[in-house]
Amino acid sequence: MSKELHSKTKIDPFGTTAIEDYEKLYEEFGIQPFKPLLSEIPDPNAAMRRGVIFGHRDFGRILSAMKNHEEYAVMSGIKPTGEFHLGTLQTAREVTYFQQHGAKAFYCIADVEAYEDNHIQFERSQKYAIGNVADLLALGFDPKKGFIYKQSKEERVKDLAILFGRGVTLATMKAIYGEHHMGLYLSALIQAGDILLPQTKDFSGPKPTVVPVGIDQDPHLRLTRDLAFKFRRKYKFIPPSSTYHKLIKALDGSPKMSKRDPMSYFTFEESPEVIAKKIRNAFTGGRPTAEEQRRLGANPDICPIYDLYLFHFFEKDEDVTRLYHEECKGGCILCGEDKQRLIEIVTTFVKEHQRKRHQYMDKAREILKAE
Amino acid sequence: MSKELHSKTKIDPFGTTAIEDYEKLYEEFGIQPFKPLLSEIPDPNAAMRRGVIFGHRDFGRILSAMKNHEEYAVMSGIKPTGEFHLGTLQTAREVTYFQQHGAKAFYCIADVEAYEDNHIQFERSQKYAIGNVADLLALGFDPKKGFIYKQSKEERVKDLAILFGRGVTLATMKAIYGEHHMGLYLSALIQAGDILLPQTKDFSGPKPTVVPVGIDQDPHLRLTRDLAFKFRRKYKFIPPSSTYHKLIKALDGSPKMSKRDPMSYFTFEESPEVIAKKIRNAFTGGRPTAEEQRRLGANPDICPIYDLYLFHFFEKDEDVTRLYHEECKGGCILCGEDKQRLIEIVTTFVKEHQRKRHQYMDKAREILKAE
Repeated sequence: MSKELHSKTKIDPFGTTAIEDYEKLYEEFGIQPFKPLLSEIPDPNAAMRRGVIFGHRDFGRILSAMKNHEEYAVMSGIKPTGEFHLGTLQTAREVTYFQQHGAKAFYCIADVEAYEDNHIQFERSQKYAIGNVADLLALGFDPKKGFIYKQSKEERVKDLAILFGRGVTLATMKAIYGEHHMGLYLSALIQAGDILLPQTKDFSGPKPTVVPVGIDQDPHLRLTRDLAFKFRRKYKFIPPSSTYHKLIKALDGSPKMSKRDPMSYFTFEESPEVIAKKIRNAFTGGRPTAEEQRRLGANPDICPIYDLYLFHFFEKDEDVTRLYHEECKGGCILCGEDKQRLIEIVTTFVKEHQRKRHQYMDKAREILKAE
Repeated sequence: MSKELHSKTKIDPFGTTAIEDYEKLYEEFGIQPFKPLLSEIPDPNAAMRRGVIFGHRDFGRILSAMKNHEEYAVMSGIKPTGEFHLGTLQTAREVTYFQQHGAKAFYCIADVEAYEDNHIQFERSQKYAIGNVADLLALGFDPKKGFIYKQSKEERVKDLAILFGRGVTLATMKAIYGEHHMGLYLSALIQAGDILLPQTKDFSGPKPTVVPVGIDQDPHLRLTRDLAFKFRRKYKFIPPSSTYHKLIKALDGSPKMSKRDPMSYFTFEESPEVIAKKIRNAFTGGRPTAEEQRRLGANPDICPIYDLYLFHFFEKDEDVTRLYHEECKGGCILCGEDKQRLIEIVTTFVKEHQRKRHQYMDKAREILKAE
């Protein structure tokens, strides 16, 4: 747990992140609200428009590169500890968005972190990695305009970690991450290497770089921005920018999905039937009886079903608005109906995604140099 | 400073090591005395016979491999922060000894440690490294029966560091090394990788390995032995053995040579004239007047000139014994004469060494893939 926090807000990439109030992040961590920039973004995506992306650091630099058609990069990745789920979908869509809007795209398979943090051996994470990359490609990531790599096989990020080691005191590590074993600190240094890799000589040198992440990853950004500053003389690093998305609620209504509870989330490798069952069993913001719901309306703010529409499954913003105000709060729809509609949308998406993903498996193996 | 120590004995590979009493190391650190093994060693070298090598961990395992002509390895190295000097000469001779007695030899250029500990950039350490390797070859190391590498370019040791990270808590690091920046801890993990590299698959798997080092390097051995144990299931590591040599006194009589004081040591790249001057100016265990010295004898135990003969420059043990008892303690020689004789021996050695070293420079560049 991060020691510098005194409120209930905890941001810990290696533990559980609980955000009591996103507003507090602006004050406590110096994260800027994203909303004021929205009107300036040429073609904002759904997550931006709907406030799912709520905060940023130094996004102005990216905005300027987008507007002026200057070189910039987007960097994010996945920890290969399992199949793609709703959280990794979010990041993948954000990376793909920036790639389609002119960014050089970097996508890291964080298998060193999977090993250090989750004790997953490299042989096993390689299997997940192949599926994860196929998912990414199925979601529209263009490997010709991007660079996908595994930490364990990318010597340049390890060498950056070695370079950065000298710039981080033990006190800084403890302040940012709390007390952990050396492997986690080492993987944090490697993550800093990932984030600054797009600015190295091999990739045409310093450039604005945006890192779209969940708020739980912000400690890595703080560390990396500090290192970019410390090593600016030799490498001319530009401090990386970041955007922060909210974390989608778990299906049981709790603040974050958890691998320990398979009913709290679904992956895109599960069968549509299993996913449908999980959605049917999900918590909602509904009333105890249909009569009450029609009379008083339900509560979308605590409802994971609403979150699923908001984050991923309604294409049009007006559908989200109508769901929130009229259908849900207005009591025009019952949770059962709402779930059934969602199941149909999700099923269509998942079937189509699985079809595409299957086609990309060979390409994914090729990218990861797997057999 | 190592926190577990309460006496004046400090062992710190990243700081100053002061050994008040070598005997205490046996009690406090579990280092075994070397002397009882001496009679069993088929062909002990001068450092062994003369007590310069005073301690060991698990040397029995090496002895058994030597006697039975079984596979074993020797591993040591140099931090490329300058030219070869009397300390690195000691280690190089020990590595070469074991290589000539059947060991697969590994010699590491610790350029990551030079960067993390001494802030030496890799471009600069590469220059020192070439000279260091030429010195090693001039001293008889056979590259055909050995493996010489730089940490920064040997991915296998970095990958071992990543592997080991998970096995070391922050508390362990602090207990062994004290409070340092992350780079030093990372270089300690890489050193553990160096020490266990000879036991990896690429080098035909687990085998007894002896690491001949100065006592200041023992913390790395303790860490590595602990890691060998922790990761024994998957890798079948045999805990590395070690031998410890005493540190040769500085020319000013202080316990350890220091780069900060160029008069406290000499390198083999200095001219014979400069070396002669440094020896002439050296502290000795002599008496204030020639008359007193002849009458009372001098004190070899505090004398760096005696150390030079003992460690390196008398080939025959009986010459050392005669110097200690008769010439020095017996007052038969004055310090000026003793120094003059040493200057002649050192000059002959240095000239010959420089000639050989020059011939090996191209080979050294080839080994280090340098231009």
